[in-house]
Amino acid sequence: MTSRRRLLAGAAVAGLGAAAGAGAVTVAAGDRDTPVPAALDTTPDTGTATVAFHGPRQAGVSEDPPAHAAFVAFTLAAGVDRRALARMLRLLSDDGRRLTQGRPALGDTDATLAVLPARLTVTFGFGPGLYRAAGLPSPVADLPAFRIDRLERRWSGGDLLLQICADDPLTVAHTQRMLIKDARPFAAIRWVQQGFRRSPGVQAPSYTQRNVLGQLDGTANPRGAAEIDPAVWHPDGSTTLVVRRVRAEIEKWDMLAVSDKENAVGRRLESGAPLSGHQERDEPDFTALDDSGLPAMPDFAHVTRAHVTDPALKILRRPYNYDGVPDAAGRPDAGLIFAAYQRDIARQYVPIQQRLADKDLLNEWITPIGSAVFAIPPGCADGGWIGEQVLA
Amino acid sequence: MTSRRRLLAGAAVAGLGAAAGAGAVTVAAGDRDTPVPAALDTTPDTGTATVAFHGPRQAGVSEDPPAHAAFVAFTLAAGVDRRALARMLRLLSDDGRRLTQGRPALGDTDATLAVLPARLTVTFGFGPGLYRAAGLPSPVADLPAFRIDRLERRWSGGDLLLQICADDPLTVAHTQRMLIKDARPFAAIRWVQQGFRRSPGVQAPSYTQRNVLGQLDGTANPRGAAEIDPAVWHPDGSTTLVVRRVRAEIEKWDMLAVSDKENAVGRRLESGAPLSGHQERDEPDFTALDDSGLPAMPDFAHVTRAHVTDPALKILRRPYNYDGVPDAAGRPDAGLIFAAYQRDIARQYVPIQQRLADKDLLNEWITPIGSAVFAIPPGCADGGWIGEQVLA
Repeated sequence: MTSRRRLLAGAAVAGLGAAAGAGAVTVAAGDRDTPVPAALDTTPDTGTATVAFHGPRQAGVSEDPPAHAAFVAFTLAAGVDRRALARMLRLLSDDGRRLTQGRPALGDTDATLAVLPARLTVTFGFGPGLYRAAGLPSPVADLPAFRIDRLERRWSGGDLLLQICADDPLTVAHTQRMLIKDARPFAAIRWVQQGFRRSPGVQAPSYTQRNVLGQLDGTANPRGAAEIDPAVWHPDGSTTLVVRRVRAEIEKWDMLAVSDKENAVGRRLESGAPLSGHQERDEPDFTALDDSGLPAMPDFAHVTRAHVTDPALKILRRPYNYDGVPDAAGRPDAGLIFAAYQRDIARQYVPIQQRLADKDLLNEWITPIGSAVFAIPPGCADGGWIGEQVLA
Repeated sequence: MTSRRRLLAGAAVAGLGAAAGAGAVTVAAGDRDTPVPAALDTTPDTGTATVAFHGPRQAGVSEDPPAHAAFVAFTLAAGVDRRALARMLRLLSDDGRRLTQGRPALGDTDATLAVLPARLTVTFGFGPGLYRAAGLPSPVADLPAFRIDRLERRWSGGDLLLQICADDPLTVAHTQRMLIKDARPFAAIRWVQQGFRRSPGVQAPSYTQRNVLGQLDGTANPRGAAEIDPAVWHPDGSTTLVVRRVRAEIEKWDMLAVSDKENAVGRRLESGAPLSGHQERDEPDFTALDDSGLPAMPDFAHVTRAHVTDPALKILRRPYNYDGVPDAAGRPDAGLIFAAYQRDIARQYVPIQQRLADKDLLNEWITPIGSAVFAIPPGCADGGWIGEQVLA
């Protein structure tokens, strides 16, 4: 396998030095007639970088999100029971295990596309329907209806979710194809949402990225294990995921002056600083007054409504942008695939969403059109499979 | 402008050193509370790299294609004449001039998204209908019908094309939005095709990339000015573009054995070497025989049919992959946005496409579903606008 992999890589990989670190492959001499280019000390491992598949927790949650993602939701076929689910998850876990490490899946029909994992992760989520099919109680339930929701079935629900993330879009496409192929005997596609963040190298991971509305998105996220663990991970390695598709009414948003945008969000557009502060990560001060004696942080502002003080009640947002094909009049089809991880949806996510639904000024310019919830089961050790703690 | 730009960049850019070269911006101290991360000697300029907008030729043709592209085709509104076209193109040229250099467009409603151009190019193409509207003879005509075509109107034709390419998908999305907004008084969207190649840093530009079918795609391209100029550029700086949307019948393709795939293409899948040779860039030898005495390069193979000997008759392929949402059964909606540049469509592109349509084995697994042709007018100097040589 190793020599075959090296050959595949030799044909595919940007000529990497042997010192490129874990996951790196060396280029077999004689595979090409052009010399290895000189400037290869730049990001030598963007293509070959790997994230471990095995462990007590699934990958694809705590790590800095890669540039591209496909969220693939399935509806289980009639008659798929606990034993069939176990068969499917053994198969898909084996695919994830191989592909995330830059190795072709078993029966990979395009093995040459497997050699550049680019931090590929495959994260498994179980919707309420999967537990029903298995005859088990579900740890997650659909969200309550919010008055701002304009949910479409084509972006909502799902029995099984595969969240596929990588720094390369061709890697995501190949992984999506292989996983869907193996899931097909057990499940139909319910929806697929493809999204993006900045390309690798465009911004350092420690910087908050802007979304399609131009806002810095994720400033209030928990950071590092000390903040993430109590908010996101149960001791058994499980967590939960909410996926909301949020359409941006960009045409209306674009008509606002910068100061109006800032009042709707509660942060300065350029710096991301709360209106009560000076720097992006200043804590918002809800008692501060502005020059005219009014609250610096408007009551209706998004940040005011979404603010959480207790670190254990924060949510970990891992959003991706989408930008589809505009209509004939040129109106964009753009927005966010808002993915949020937390221990407990009812205690953490729902109160925030309820406060936003009640009176977030930003609701004028964003519309939830899709919604789904998934339990994220623990990870698995080498030789195990995702879901074994639930279904075995 | 400079200080404003620096502020915007300070909030947006991965902490870049001052030595990052042309197009780089420095980070204003005090804009944030986190120290500049250490590992920033990796690709310091992926986000800030620029391609010149002005010059005798338009950008977006000869350069190595960036990772992301949007091809936006418009239908002119009734009554848009030569003078209105000139007004529109002055406006759009000004947008292109600013955005490609990392500056907001005039009236940019999301200026914070303009600061990371990531090698952004905006290339203007004129379809036959634009010349008609201007009362001028068109230098390009629709392709003849090929028997393999299954063209859909929603992917075909167009009076005006904007080819937007950048190494960052958010930059492409913002640029697309701004340009469409300014084109709107003059034209409706006809189609938009969004595509991708490998992310920046995943493969060195000198390596041929694989497409969604796993094939090395572009091996036979002219390389460098000596090969590209006579095949692509007229002395006045103009060229032509063919955009074909080619659906890949991946489900059927995936059923083939590697050797069958190789026979259909005429190249080894892993190395990209012609079946008559050993290395990717070996010239195919159509007289060579294999071990069983048959021609090593099958008559019906894609490479055999597409082969061009005269360097002046080659075409410059600049393809992007697309991967849309699969159907409920999991069948992919994937393929190529096949963009080809050449001096003369009738002399260069059509004969190749005709030979392929006649008997390319690969036709079993690819289907053209969209087709459009555009003249690419020369570039313009600072203060000028794209199309001035045609319309002024």
